[in-house]
Amino acid sequence: MASCLSFFFFLFFIAFSATLTILPANSLPTFFPRATYSQSLIKHAKTPKPKLPFKTHYFPQTLDHFTFQPKSSKIFYQKYLINSHYWHKGAPIFVYTGNEGDIEWFAANTGFMLDIAPKFKALLVFIEHRFYGESMPFGKDSYKSAKTLGYLNSQQALADFAVLIRSLKQNLSSEASPVVVFGGSYGGMLAAWFRLKYPHIAIGALASSAPILQFDKIIPWSSFYDAVSQDFKDVSLNCFEVIKGSWDELDAMSTQKEALAELSKAFRTCKSLHSTASAQNWLWTAFVYTAMVNYPTEANFLKPLPAYPVEQMCRIIDKLPAGATKLSRAFAAASLYYNYSRAESCFEIEHEVDAHGLHGWEWQSCTEMVMPMTCSKESMFPPSGFDYEEFSEQCQIKYGVLPRPHWITTEFGGQSIHKVLKRFGSNIIFSNGMQDPWSRGGVLKNISASIIAIVAEKGAHHVDFRSATKEDPKWLTEMRRQEVEIIQKWLNEYYEDLRHA
Amino acid sequence: MASCLSFFFFLFFIAFSATLTILPANSLPTFFPRATYSQSLIKHAKTPKPKLPFKTHYFPQTLDHFTFQPKSSKIFYQKYLINSHYWHKGAPIFVYTGNEGDIEWFAANTGFMLDIAPKFKALLVFIEHRFYGESMPFGKDSYKSAKTLGYLNSQQALADFAVLIRSLKQNLSSEASPVVVFGGSYGGMLAAWFRLKYPHIAIGALASSAPILQFDKIIPWSSFYDAVSQDFKDVSLNCFEVIKGSWDELDAMSTQKEALAELSKAFRTCKSLHSTASAQNWLWTAFVYTAMVNYPTEANFLKPLPAYPVEQMCRIIDKLPAGATKLSRAFAAASLYYNYSRAESCFEIEHEVDAHGLHGWEWQSCTEMVMPMTCSKESMFPPSGFDYEEFSEQCQIKYGVLPRPHWITTEFGGQSIHKVLKRFGSNIIFSNGMQDPWSRGGVLKNISASIIAIVAEKGAHHVDFRSATKEDPKWLTEMRRQEVEIIQKWLNEYYEDLRHA
Repeated sequence: MASCLSFFFFLFFIAFSATLTILPANSLPTFFPRATYSQSLIKHAKTPKPKLPFKTHYFPQTLDHFTFQPKSSKIFYQKYLINSHYWHKGAPIFVYTGNEGDIEWFAANTGFMLDIAPKFKALLVFIEHRFYGESMPFGKDSYKSAKTLGYLNSQQALADFAVLIRSLKQNLSSEASPVVVFGGSYGGMLAAWFRLKYPHIAIGALASSAPILQFDKIIPWSSFYDAVSQDFKDVSLNCFEVIKGSWDELDAMSTQKEALAELSKAFRTCKSLHSTASAQNWLWTAFVYTAMVNYPTEANFLKPLPAYPVEQMCRIIDKLPAGATKLSRAFAAASLYYNYSRAESCFEIEHEVDAHGLHGWEWQSCTEMVMPMTCSKESMFPPSGFDYEEFSEQCQIKYGVLPRPHWITTEFGGQSIHKVLKRFGSNIIFSNGMQDPWSRGGVLKNISASIIAIVAEKGAHHVDFRSATKEDPKWLTEMRRQEVEIIQKWLNEYYEDLRHA
Repeated sequence: MASCLSFFFFLFFIAFSATLTILPANSLPTFFPRATYSQSLIKHAKTPKPKLPFKTHYFPQTLDHFTFQPKSSKIFYQKYLINSHYWHKGAPIFVYTGNEGDIEWFAANTGFMLDIAPKFKALLVFIEHRFYGESMPFGKDSYKSAKTLGYLNSQQALADFAVLIRSLKQNLSSEASPVVVFGGSYGGMLAAWFRLKYPHIAIGALASSAPILQFDKIIPWSSFYDAVSQDFKDVSLNCFEVIKGSWDELDAMSTQKEALAELSKAFRTCKSLHSTASAQNWLWTAFVYTAMVNYPTEANFLKPLPAYPVEQMCRIIDKLPAGATKLSRAFAAASLYYNYSRAESCFEIEHEVDAHGLHGWEWQSCTEMVMPMTCSKESMFPPSGFDYEEFSEQCQIKYGVLPRPHWITTEFGGQSIHKVLKRFGSNIIFSNGMQDPWSRGGVLKNISASIIAIVAEKGAHHVDFRSATKEDPKWLTEMRRQEVEIIQKWLNEYYEDLRHA
């Protein structure tokens, strides 16, 4: 088996499947897809936009908030969506702090905000993150090189939110309306950080599945893949062991003649495979993302999937006839992820499409969002370490810049973040579902009376943000009820303060 | 009298005297000295460095913390001074967050930190602000244009402090040592903001004479000059009225033939004057800076001056023989500021030397540090407004960039800053002396149990930071005692927390 030493998974929500490239043992590990930026852009084939109850706006945003060079004040148009259907003047403004993808995608998957807007008479605003979707500071050249991409990072994004919200409130003559920020995943990190750094702009934050502890050495590097593995183990020990054993079978094939042809056939690929690494990557992606979106109801966040898809995958693995190999079982399980809708007659294993415009995350991972991850021997993945030197060398080769692995913890707090939140933070909800491997980098215990952790054992990646459905289990309804109650409390306090001012 | 409509005073601590240029009534006001950047650098004739009990170090600092372009990671050498004479490992680290000048100048004028170091067994660190002193990111080209100067701003400076402190603690294996930041004037603003934005790095801040409210429309724009005027009025109504009347006399001369020759003689200039505006500027500077440094003991911060120099100035004005004109009285008073040491045989009115390397403040004023100021009819200065359009046009002409007048309040809080500090801040002392006109932009009332205002009616610009002397009045000793007591409380709490962690 090719041990993927120093293997680092550039995943957040979803990256290209091609991001994961596993090479034969004697090669240097490759961290990035071989596609160039421009190819990435071509591959960014948009899915049809969902019909959403929002009006689209574009805000003239400053390119660089933190320098004053002549070009820093260049304006780009930042997209934001507004729903004012339920809003009464003076009522709260709920802002989604957009993350690494098209803003419509987040709006479509954050039905929670629409669900609760009538109760709060809230204005809803979804702000797209710079360098994603249509919010491209340099148009089609935005991803051309580090010279343009250099402006893509979290602090600039937070400043964008601050400037846009301030201007919006002024234009609406609603300076007194309280702002609550919402965000999921990286968007949740942004929401929490926004509350910490801009408390004068947002009175509170609901940060769903925000792994703010996934940096530096705050949590063990193996946490993420251990958590993915645990999800499968909890359903069936056999399922876990089949997946764990499948990598060796795949690896053995790479030494056989005609292996790729055989594998292409077995994996029903649309085009012949060029490496077994692609197949490993494809399987890996399916298991990781299915764990992330192990929702209690049928859903379509990354892909259409049934309720509790990890259970369904393990059912497939466990129920195949006795003669089936581990690899064929793993393939069958992964097919659930890629083809639950049964729309695919073959699989584009080496040419997965970036349907939600997420490719910018690769850049962010190579600059500030350095989240070291390893695979422990106890996980169901091939054991691997994290070699920072190699990682940074690859970033240098790909983007011409070196990562700043300690920057996020310098800017937002590292080991001491709990203490800081306790003493100086307030009005943040960190919600997490323990099925989601990112939960291990999240805040899972109450930190103070107003920094609250809401943890759902059976929850997955920001499940609370999905639209309520009739099939929702009680724990999910209860999770959302608690969130509404806490937000209501913040607002009551705010309006109370306002009356006494 | 030339009414200096839209006159804006680019002062902080001290700018060139030439910064103040008052033109005949029909000319456009000029906001900047006519010297070019390079001339500014030439004029920056350093005074001999004071002998200080510090070791000089240079930290390899990142040029741009908030972008990741290839050049962002360029390293420059940031100067910092260390005194470890009193330090015991584990004891606190007191950091001065350097402001707009040579760091030795601040170290020499912040004897308070040296005075209290033995009591706390503290390590003392004075960090120079980027683009001042020796901390020039582009060497001699640092002030060449907005392309290089673009990296000079407060947020980059705060990030510099964060990165340097973190690295220093690591190198000293003293991660558990609590850091308290100290700063005066703009340095005080930086200290307070650092505590707000980086609470995980500094456990508290002593912000002396920090006018964090001097932005946007938080306080009335006439506050500053009203306060200067009040200082003189409080000493002697006649003194105030003489100064108030002197501008008209000066203005009348500008219409007379041979006026400049006569004025040059009367003002004992080393070289013939080119405009009466220079003389006005020279007087103006003397009155404003003397109000700022109206210390209770003989001192040499900006210039050598006697105790309570405003009183001395008014004594001069009031005691001149009955026939003396208002202008000659004003000149005599200003001479105290420029020549208390009696070292000058003539005055360099149009070529004042920038002895402490402060010229970078002009750039900062033209980008983020926009502090609108006007002169009310009640002040002792010629009435003037503030025309933002003209101001920004001048910045555009001089630096090729437009100011961002709302940025500081967006980044750090505006009207709501008190509320924000109350609810989300802690462990900040705002100390102010009411003689100091900058105090009007300061926090003058306790905001919470741990955001404390210490106000000295007879105090001037960060008087508490000066070395203790035998002549110090009781109120000053008491001011410092309170500060030490509060810092001790923060440290006790920190160590208590540490023991329970």
